Amino acid sequence: MGVNLYDYANELEKALRESDEFLELKKVYDEVNADESAKKMFDNFRNIQVTLQQKQMNGEQITQEEVEQAQKTAQLVQQHATISKLMEAEQRMSMVINELNKVIMKPLEELYGSMQ
Amino acid sequence: MGVNLYDYANELEKALRESDEFLELKKVYDEVNADESAKKMFDNFRNIQVTLQQKQMNGEQITQEEVEQAQKTAQLVQQHATISKLMEAEQRMSMVINELNKVIMKPLEELYGSMQ
Repeated sequence: MGVNLYDYANELEKALRESDEFLELKKVYDEVNADESAKKMFDNFRNIQVTLQQKQMNGEQITQEEVEQAQKTAQLVQQHATISKLMEAEQRMSMVINELNKVIMKPLEELYGSMQ
Repeated sequence: MGVNLYDYANELEKALRESDEFLELKKVYDEVNADESAKKMFDNFRNIQVTLQQKQMNGEQITQEEVEQAQKTAQLVQQHATISKLMEAEQRMSMVINELNKVIMKPLEELYGSMQ
């Protein structure tokens, strides 16, 4: 890869690090980390999500009990002010990342689109 | 997303579009497109790949016959000078994209890494 390309990526990385969306995400992340019970609840929620996703990807059966446990944990987490702030911040960050990717991948989109 | 972030992404997009890897990919893509039999062979190869990937993701059975057909097509394609040049160019482009993504995603990697 040419030196230039790296330079531009580094510039974008720096801008991302200083963006409102990232700073807000970092702030709320730190808040959750500083609150032991919130952190526990959030870790538990993430673990359940990851486990279910893996089962789904492996084509494994998900039991009714697991679905209910996941729903219950999701409800708990949504009622927790700090955690729901974190989840909103994550969603905003992920929308930004998607937008950036769309911009950067335009040349490839155009190329592959023209192949059809 | 702040205006700045978009600007940096656009700069990177422009640099990607002018990179050796992208220009080479585009050149070989056009070569394959201009060669009707190469294009047919390549489209066929891609279709088989996509179909098998989808079956795999859906947890569907892949028959021995399908595996053999995929292998045969892959061999044919690798022996075709222009198509194999295209596949190499795609691989190089995809390595560059991965590197760029690693750079851009560093802030998030750091943040999530610190959460453990």
